[in-house]
Parts: sequence; C-alpha cells; structure tokens
Amino acid sequence: AAGPALGRTLEIKQLDVCDEGSIRACLDSIPGRHVDVLVSNAGVGMVGPLESQSLAAMQSLMDTNFFGLVRLVKEVLPDMKRRRGGHIVVISSIMGLQGIVFNDIYSASKFAVEGFCESLVVQALRFNVAISLVEPGPVLYEEAERADYSRTDPETAKIFTDLYLRNSRDVFASLGQTPEDIAEHTLRVIEAARPPFRHQTNVAYTPMAALKHADPSGAL
Amino acid sequence: AAGPALGRTLEIKQLDVCDEGSIRACLDSIPGRHVDVLVSNAGVGMVGPLESQSLAAMQSLMDTNFFGLVRLVKEVLPDMKRRRGGHIVVISSIMGLQGIVFNDIYSASKFAVEGFCESLVVQALRFNVAISLVEPGPVLYEEAERADYSRTDPETAKIFTDLYLRNSRDVFASLGQTPEDIAEHTLRVIEAARPPFRHQTNVAYTPMAALKHADPSGAL
Repeated sequence: AAGPALGRTLEIKQLDVCDEGSIRACLDSIPGRHVDVLVSNAGVGMVGPLESQSLAAMQSLMDTNFFGLVRLVKEVLPDMKRRRGGHIVVISSIMGLQGIVFNDIYSASKFAVEGFCESLVVQALRFNVAISLVEPGPVLYEEAERADYSRTDPETAKIFTDLYLRNSRDVFASLGQTPEDIAEHTLRVIEAARPPFRHQTNVAYTPMAALKHADPSGAL
Repeated sequence: AAGPALGRTLEIKQLDVCDEGSIRACLDSIPGRHVDVLVSNAGVGMVGPLESQSLAAMQSLMDTNFFGLVRLVKEVLPDMKRRRGGHIVVISSIMGLQGIVFNDIYSASKFAVEGFCESLVVQALRFNVAISLVEPGPVLYEEAERADYSRTDPETAKIFTDLYLRNSRDVFASLGQTPEDIAEHTLRVIEAARPPFRHQTNVAYTPMAALKHADPSGAL
C-alpha cells in the first residue's frame, strides 16, 4: 500500500502502544518530535460469552484498546499544545456508541475511548488541537480461530453460536466495509477544513446509535 | 445507618473488588451463594490535567471502577442465569454518558461500565436477569487533598484551578446530592416492578446527556 513513496516521502516506524518507553523512543526519533497528525488505530477484538473470557485477557485488551491511546496522547499532546496545533484521530467503533451482545469487553474498551476523547476535546480545543473519533461498523478481516466456550453454560454457548455467530456472518456479508474503506474515511477526516469530532463510516448504523438515546429507560 | 437490623436481618460482609479470590470467598460464605440483588458501588475518583496523572494511577482506577464490576458480574451472573432471576444494580455516573473536561480517565471508566452493561443486558434479559445503571450527577463528599499539578504546563494548570475547580465548587453547591439521596434513588430502582435499564438521579443533567446526541458531529 505504501507504493513508490516508501523511503522517499514516507518512512515507517514501529512502536508498541503498551510500552511507554517504546512510544517515547519512536517520538524522539522524529525531527523536533513534531507530529501534525496522530492516527491511533491499534486495537484487538474479543467476542463470546463473558464466562469464557479470563480477567487477564480482558485486561490485556483494555491495555491495548484504551491505555494504548492514553499513552500515545500523553506523549504527543504536550507538544501539540505548545505548538498550538495538531490533530489526534482515533479509530473507535460504532460499539463505542452502542453496546452489542457478546461484545461486552470490546464495547467497554471503545466506550472508554469515547468518554476519554469527549472529556479531552474541550481542553484540547483551547490549545487549537483537534480530536476526531472515526467510528466504523463491521470491518471485513480474516476470521480468527474459534475460541473455547466450555467455561460458559451450554444454553449461553448455544445462543452465541446459533444466534449470534450465524447472524453476525450475515451482517458482515451485507454491511461490512474493508480496511481500505475505513482508511479513506479517515483520510477525509484528516483533510477536512474543520475536522468533525465524530465520524461514522457506515450510515447503516447511525439510526441504531441515535435510537438508544430516544429511549433512555431501555423500555422500548 | 444499619440501625437495629444489624446482626438480626442484616449482616455486613467485606470483599475487595480488585481480588477475584476475595469475591469468591465472600460469595461462598452466603447460603447457597444466593444473591437476589447485587449493588456494585465501589469506585474511586480522579480529576485534573492528564499530564499530571501517571499510567499506574489510571490503571488502578480502571481496575476498581470497571474491572471491579466485571469481577463481581462474572461471579454472580452464572448463578443468576441458572436460577432465572436476579438484579444487578450498577452505580455509574452522568460522566458515563457525557465526558467532562479534566475528568478524562474517570469518564472513560464510567463509559466502560455503560458499554459493558449495555452489551450484557441483552443476554441477561433472556435469562430473566435485570441490569440497572444508576447515574448520579455531582455527589457531596469530603474534599480530597489537593494533588500535584507540576507535571502539566502552567497554562493548563491555571485553567484547571481557576476555571474548573472554581466552577466545580459552584456546581456542587447548587446541584450536588448527598450519598443518602443516591441510596434512596437506588432503593427505588431495586423496588421497581419493572426495573429501568438507566436511571439518572439528577434531572438537571438529563438535557446535557440528551443534547450530545442531537449533534453527533460536535459542531453545535
């Protein structure tokens, strides 16, 4: 995807969002530590009955999906504030706006990302630093190997495999976007004259996220 | 607050929401591990400029405010599902619906709680287990000692102390509720014939949380 720009105007560097030292070393290797646009995209998935997921796996997910962003922001925001400019683009998810069954921990991590950015944007704007949340719906990727659901009760496991997974495949087939689609949406957000705070990449999900707030009691 | 019930119909037990073993031991000490109503209330606060907060402190907050709930739910939900009954009442916050400046990590933790419960409630309802989120606004408590803000830039520290803290005191004085107020709201949620999924304790905040979704782009 890099094409002929690689090695000319494009350089690829590596960092581990779970390691503050690695982020700092990467930033220090950039001339003047000058970052105009930070795109925070690192994330891992987790789906299935809660009972079949270990606390350690959940904490590891939160460490990447939420604290990975926090570590990046802590490292670049002070420079951006000093320079009175910069754009932090965060790849969130429609599941950061609406929880989805059997995605309890993944949704929680993306909700955390949303709450963090909502709180921070008020302060950032005073320093002319923009924050944008890109919120994709389902994204097509190689299917992960099937996990072990033996730690939940048979009924829950059956609901998950027979209802959720089957329905999920249909949803991905009909509404799924490619990573390239998301990259193009992200580019549009970066290039916008006035970057939006939120941008949903999939219009099919906008009514779902909005309807939730038309009925705060959940009685609907 | 326990009154004459203590030692007769009321027994007080202790657990640490950050320690799975401690939760299990507490549950095992209850006859038949039978819990009709779980009220998850453990939480810690954090306010101030992001630059003055350490990753370790943030992770500790997430471990109590979010994973504390997850550990409790993992321990009681299988029993409730088996019994086809039970009510999980979670003390969240209006900051789980709307991020507030200088409350980046606290808001994130409460957003995580909201996303987790939203995802889980769909599954829980199939097993006749209710989940309710109680969302207080400002609650009056003893003011914590002032933290050290030297790790942020002077301008941010000044915005925090001169604008945020001063304004915050006014808000608490005019809109703050007591812990007893919140307990009464929680009791009402527990006793409801059809428990609501969300219950805000402070009507002054409902418009704020609703307005956010009238303007998803944040341009308002």
